[in-house]
Amino acid sequence: MPKNAFYAQSGGVTAVINATACGVLETAKQYPDKIGKVYAGRNGIIGALTEDLIDTSQESAEAIAALRYTPSGAFGSCRFKLKGLEQNKAEYERLIEVFKAHDIGYFFYNGGGDSQDTSYKVSQLGDTLGYPITCIGIPKTVDNDLPITDTCPGFGSVAKYVAVSIREASFDVLSMAKTSTKVFIMEVMGRHAGWIAAAGGLAAEKESDGPHIIIFPEVIFDPEKFLAKVDFCVKKYGYCSIIVSEGAKNQDGKFISEAGTRDAFGHVQLGGVAPVIANIVKDKFGYKYHWAVADYLQRAARHIASKTDVEQAYAVGKAAVEFAVAGKTAVMPVIVRKSSQPYQWEIGSANLADVANVEKKMPREFISEDGFGITPACREYLQPLIAGEDYPPYKNGLPDYVELKNVAVPKKLATTFEVKK
Amino acid sequence: MPKNAFYAQSGGVTAVINATACGVLETAKQYPDKIGKVYAGRNGIIGALTEDLIDTSQESAEAIAALRYTPSGAFGSCRFKLKGLEQNKAEYERLIEVFKAHDIGYFFYNGGGDSQDTSYKVSQLGDTLGYPITCIGIPKTVDNDLPITDTCPGFGSVAKYVAVSIREASFDVLSMAKTSTKVFIMEVMGRHAGWIAAAGGLAAEKESDGPHIIIFPEVIFDPEKFLAKVDFCVKKYGYCSIIVSEGAKNQDGKFISEAGTRDAFGHVQLGGVAPVIANIVKDKFGYKYHWAVADYLQRAARHIASKTDVEQAYAVGKAAVEFAVAGKTAVMPVIVRKSSQPYQWEIGSANLADVANVEKKMPREFISEDGFGITPACREYLQPLIAGEDYPPYKNGLPDYVELKNVAVPKKLATTFEVKK
Repeated sequence: MPKNAFYAQSGGVTAVINATACGVLETAKQYPDKIGKVYAGRNGIIGALTEDLIDTSQESAEAIAALRYTPSGAFGSCRFKLKGLEQNKAEYERLIEVFKAHDIGYFFYNGGGDSQDTSYKVSQLGDTLGYPITCIGIPKTVDNDLPITDTCPGFGSVAKYVAVSIREASFDVLSMAKTSTKVFIMEVMGRHAGWIAAAGGLAAEKESDGPHIIIFPEVIFDPEKFLAKVDFCVKKYGYCSIIVSEGAKNQDGKFISEAGTRDAFGHVQLGGVAPVIANIVKDKFGYKYHWAVADYLQRAARHIASKTDVEQAYAVGKAAVEFAVAGKTAVMPVIVRKSSQPYQWEIGSANLADVANVEKKMPREFISEDGFGITPACREYLQPLIAGEDYPPYKNGLPDYVELKNVAVPKKLATTFEVKK
Repeated sequence: MPKNAFYAQSGGVTAVINATACGVLETAKQYPDKIGKVYAGRNGIIGALTEDLIDTSQESAEAIAALRYTPSGAFGSCRFKLKGLEQNKAEYERLIEVFKAHDIGYFFYNGGGDSQDTSYKVSQLGDTLGYPITCIGIPKTVDNDLPITDTCPGFGSVAKYVAVSIREASFDVLSMAKTSTKVFIMEVMGRHAGWIAAAGGLAAEKESDGPHIIIFPEVIFDPEKFLAKVDFCVKKYGYCSIIVSEGAKNQDGKFISEAGTRDAFGHVQLGGVAPVIANIVKDKFGYKYHWAVADYLQRAARHIASKTDVEQAYAVGKAAVEFAVAGKTAVMPVIVRKSSQPYQWEIGSANLADVANVEKKMPREFISEDGFGITPACREYLQPLIAGEDYPPYKNGLPDYVELKNVAVPKKLATTFEVKK
């Protein structure tokens, strides 16, 4: 009898993480001699710890196929990071208990840096706790901050959303600038890396195009320099269009806007730097301004997903299963760029040990000398990632996204497990 | 010699006001015996006052056709309202001076309620100042608050953007709710009327779907009732997805968030009610929340425009010219709904005297009894307006919007005119 597989989604969801799930599920079906059922964790790894598994074999082939164009995490995700074996052996023992009970021999974990740390720890189970399990990490993060892989599935679609949105808003503000709004500020995600903010720069194909200013987390915010550039843009182009990263920092290295709350990983929860920047502009020049905070709209925007991103998201899911059936473990499929023009890529492999807890920042040579824009090298890197459209089907004027049945696998254990936050 | 025409865009721009311009320009070319050149006002009526006219005949047919899928106001818009004849006769005399100098016999003014007040006043010029001019208002406003017309071009596309976005964000939050964000708040436009907020309700096709709560400007915000519903939703559905109108008001009838600045029409400039609502939720329940402010992104979002809206925007531009050449004046083409299922509409005509300064609010029967949702009647009204997609062409992963040359018409007057704010 082939072993069953466990698949879970972790961390912030994206417009294309379900395309990865689709790749995993459709590919697993092609190996019935090696993989039995695929059980999804309800709400990520928590589903494994609490024996709350979803039987994906209960879904129709059509529903699984529809995951390719449905944003969000179809099985539920979670923000929960397994501690080290030394600190919390009970969690690992519980995972083994659940995996054994359901005859699970494959572990697929779909997430970003924190999640790949979990993948790596689970991959060590075989050695340290004597339970053989094939463990494959699958990359996902809008932040684009995983190492080794050329890009992270989820990023290209956020990048496209941000570039499209700032182009549209810049056109709008240019129309209004004579008698009304002169400065527009759009806040985008990117906790510590400016990749998403940089993507906004793709909209500026010639000098006068917005965005005129990008505020990166990698460049300490200098209000004087910033205000001088705003002044220059309003005088020269009639308006100033600005992208600001939620992770923008002031001279003290602190986030310009700090909500004060922290997520389960201990990261500061951010939001609301755009109005702070707007006030700085207003105080100095008195210009009428508008600001937008895209927040979840950007990472959920499957309606304007990048075709490249959707294809890569599917491909890493497919590759993860192919790695597993080929006997690989403790690895993660990655995107390898062969060429930028024309854009060519293929799937490669990275060791989870090299991926976990490593954060890839924007290289300084991707940021223009004045710190407020992107360089041609950055454009060459980003451009292919937003290429192509991949529209979902519509019904009643709205995207016809799928909701799965998510039927629970009957529990086999008498024991329960309390997940400690 | 046929008279020339003047066309201008006014007030906040939309995703489809250029589709209307396209309708005007393409249709005017079909009547060379009646209409000479079409001059566009640079920055709306200010272009007429300052003799800053754009010669649209200098644009290629391709560029004019591309206006159909380009958001924003291609000639520049303005927030400027002509005063009454008694208060500022000089402005009207100046308009006549410019119109005479450029042999302008047709005046097309594309805007919302304040702008149609201007259209109406200009239409009176013929009578009171002895200058014969054919004057046609053309409806446009994302607020959907013009009277007589069944809907306002610009609204359907914002409605679609809001409904699509809240569906996507709701899917996202549902994925995260177990361990992270439980409450999501999206702020949308709509100064005094809740039409845009109501459109978000289209995304909720069954009880558990987001948005679960809509905060309308028409319904005084009751924090206790609101919090009780948030609590109910989080307990029943695991999360709560909320749309809040920028015009939401508290028990004193004041805007929940007031930026304190006013636009040229004297309207309070709003923004930032979403974080206020988020704090109310957090203070009561401590739930992790996220909020978004779509701001200009929503009205500029041509990438997800409603096909119905684009067609109607073009149709009112076309009809305006047809009205003019048929000898009508002081009228505005309107959308007349013949049937909702199947959706059928045609162009009708309204007198500017009946349009100016009348604001159409949401009927109470469109808002559910508890004040937090839309009724089936509202859904029947809104549904057809977001129907159909009308994607722009893409280049380099981005919408390939047109920028016109906007060549100035040589000035003929020695006099200048200072526009008073």
